[in-house]
Amino acid sequence: MDKVNLEDKFALFSEHWSPKIVGELNGQHVKLVKLKGEFIWHKHDEEDELFFVVKGSFKMEYRDKTVQINENEFLIVPRGVEHKPVADEEVWIMLFEPTTTLNTGNTKSDMTKAVLDKI
Amino acid sequence: MDKVNLEDKFALFSEHWSPKIVGELNGQHVKLVKLKGEFIWHKHDEEDELFFVVKGSFKMEYRDKTVQINENEFLIVPRGVEHKPVADEEVWIMLFEPTTTLNTGNTKSDMTKAVLDKI
Repeated sequence: MDKVNLEDKFALFSEHWSPKIVGELNGQHVKLVKLKGEFIWHKHDEEDELFFVVKGSFKMEYRDKTVQINENEFLIVPRGVEHKPVADEEVWIMLFEPTTTLNTGNTKSDMTKAVLDKI
Repeated sequence: MDKVNLEDKFALFSEHWSPKIVGELNGQHVKLVKLKGEFIWHKHDEEDELFFVVKGSFKMEYRDKTVQINENEFLIVPRGVEHKPVADEEVWIMLFEPTTTLNTGNTKSDMTKAVLDKI
């Protein structure tokens, strides 16, 4: 029941592609993540995923199109849809997604984070 | 799979205390609302509610304390907890909550919005 300040939380970590849990409600997690560079193609069979840009911008690549998302914009990636985030510069993102969501979805790789820190 | 720009959506309405649906995922709605003035005491028996401040600030009153939430901060009000938002000046908020959530929870009043517009 205390508030969460996004700037304060983002100041606590610097690594990329490593989501941190900052809230939980209704079986969903609120996560913060910093992205830079190119992620891997993946999908989530059971989970829709919301990406809200707090600072910077990035591109979400789908198999048939690319969407650029800027500050104060969000994108919902429906379950089952292959996607790949690409960030030319560092971007700060708030995620809303079910607590069961694995960052790399159906694709296991060195970038898979099975256990996330709560900050 | 298209992005949503918050400024563009907030420009589409001016009334207070009337949440608009701008996204849906995993049984949850993303809503935008403008608040000004004082709401009514209520609680949600089955739903946790997230308030994220996009512009401005407001106070969330609980029965035993008050929390001020500023831009780029969020607050999660757990199910069952009585609360009353108060905004001295207009504030723009993004809500994240189950699709079953009624704005006035267990308290029916003139401020109850049974049907919400999607914008």
